[in-house]
Amino acid sequence: MPSGEDSLITRYFRPLATDPGAFDLTDDAAILKSSAEDLVVTTDAIVAGVHFLPADPSDTIARKALRVNLSDLAAKGAEPAGFVLTLALREADDAWLTAFARGLGEDATQFGCPLLGGDTVSTPGPVMISITAFGRVPPGRMVRRNGAKGGDRVVVSGTIGDAALGLHLLKGGTAAALGGDERETLIGRYRVPQPRVALARAVRGHASAAMDVSDGLAGDLAKLCAASEVSAAIDAQSIPLSGPARTLLSRCAVGIESIVSGGDDYEILCTVPENRFEAFAQAASLAGVPVTSIGTIIAGLAIPRFIDGQGAEIALPRLSYSHF
Amino acid sequence: MPSGEDSLITRYFRPLATDPGAFDLTDDAAILKSSAEDLVVTTDAIVAGVHFLPADPSDTIARKALRVNLSDLAAKGAEPAGFVLTLALREADDAWLTAFARGLGEDATQFGCPLLGGDTVSTPGPVMISITAFGRVPPGRMVRRNGAKGGDRVVVSGTIGDAALGLHLLKGGTAAALGGDERETLIGRYRVPQPRVALARAVRGHASAAMDVSDGLAGDLAKLCAASEVSAAIDAQSIPLSGPARTLLSRCAVGIESIVSGGDDYEILCTVPENRFEAFAQAASLAGVPVTSIGTIIAGLAIPRFIDGQGAEIALPRLSYSHF
Repeated sequence: MPSGEDSLITRYFRPLATDPGAFDLTDDAAILKSSAEDLVVTTDAIVAGVHFLPADPSDTIARKALRVNLSDLAAKGAEPAGFVLTLALREADDAWLTAFARGLGEDATQFGCPLLGGDTVSTPGPVMISITAFGRVPPGRMVRRNGAKGGDRVVVSGTIGDAALGLHLLKGGTAAALGGDERETLIGRYRVPQPRVALARAVRGHASAAMDVSDGLAGDLAKLCAASEVSAAIDAQSIPLSGPARTLLSRCAVGIESIVSGGDDYEILCTVPENRFEAFAQAASLAGVPVTSIGTIIAGLAIPRFIDGQGAEIALPRLSYSHF
Repeated sequence: MPSGEDSLITRYFRPLATDPGAFDLTDDAAILKSSAEDLVVTTDAIVAGVHFLPADPSDTIARKALRVNLSDLAAKGAEPAGFVLTLALREADDAWLTAFARGLGEDATQFGCPLLGGDTVSTPGPVMISITAFGRVPPGRMVRRNGAKGGDRVVVSGTIGDAALGLHLLKGGTAAALGGDERETLIGRYRVPQPRVALARAVRGHASAAMDVSDGLAGDLAKLCAASEVSAAIDAQSIPLSGPARTLLSRCAVGIESIVSGGDDYEILCTVPENRFEAFAQAASLAGVPVTSIGTIIAGLAIPRFIDGQGAEIALPRLSYSHF
């Protein structure tokens, strides 16, 4: 007494439980206080060998686990309120856990999303982290996938495709055209996404539909359009790309189809009515988040089309990543 | 389009998402409507080979995954409000998933705890199910671990030790004294716990401290006492046992120490002030849940003592299960 499991929780995770509703992780449950707001709930898990590489630094694994959930909250227009963590480990390794808890705690502080509780279990399998995160929105104001209307602009935050290129590099893919810094930029985008928490208010205020880009822009846009019963025409040349991605594209080291169907972007994809776009862009600018209009919602139920500089539709062998 | 993952969710899990806040599982997040009540959040994961046997029927695996969380909510005095599911699978097997979703859906209906959302991921490892469940209590009324006072009665629901004996049988342990029905009873207690949801109101109304017994009565009571800064004296002969457990104990096929330190009971352990005990017992009786007074909270910080029929303290080589 206390058991190894309790010691582990006390040692590594209690310092992160800064919210009074977490009871210092000494109880069986946490309390989210009631308020006049709706509580937005999202859950995302990451598995070693599937969503991250087993050798990735554990602080980046922790950050990614939390950030993919923060990205969902931001896309729904919600402000972070807290999260619970399930951590499945083969063994309790001090160095790994110390860095994991440090990364998690720093992000929890940075994004205002405290640890409320969790469960730590042993597994004979790969490390798995499942996080359920909570956010708040004014009543009825969560931004759904299903509100896009013909004529709305299709908008994305940040740049698209970097994380998929980073994974390509980590798996030994060549990118001779890139300098070391550029390679690190792409790898960093895969390992540690930048959740657009700062954009939540602008999304809530102006977007007709929104989701985060996690499985690939093409597939996720198709999901948003299906939910809204609309289609879209995307100008592929407008898709915002980072410097390294532009370099690889210009050297034909990678095709645009890999960029729009690669996963792990964790940028926000949203639709904004034309008469709200200027206000949305201003709010995004004030929030410090770059946003780019990449196309238009159109009537119909066709899968969204990506059009190249010659006006031809780009063939996409696959739209996005699927687990099964 | 839709991907295998989306088809899987649509086919197996959408029918379970009966709450309007689940949006038919077509969005990235769910809504828990605000209310005047506190929201109680708990999370528990189960892993194949650790918390259940890989060959267990998948409907029982689903039920156990949900019920261990419902057990936590009940022990905190909370009424179920819904849950989110993370399901990590090696492959999507139709028969396995069909039975899994059926068991989960039946329990969600029975206990009034609808599926709100989730994440389905592939894993090269064992099946893992992580559930975060939500309950509601009037503001400030969640029952903590830390309220036990000297003189309070120590109470448990149901019977103790059956699940550990069931696991013993499943692992090939002998129990020649038992008939087939009795063996099935014990195995059923391991595979499908009976969460004491019906006792939540009585716990909230009368208990000074409470938790569920998941890792073993001795260890969990020690945790409750440590949180409350008290000790306890338990009359081992008062611990409620099932018929099969009594048979095994009387034939010396198992010792009382295995019964009080075995896990997976998912009964409620609570402390009740002496002047509230009669009202608590009446409320429990009305709820149809048997409860038994097994001892008394006493001053001090010693680990709770279990006393046998001769007044001697029972030696407990280990108090409970620990993952690490």
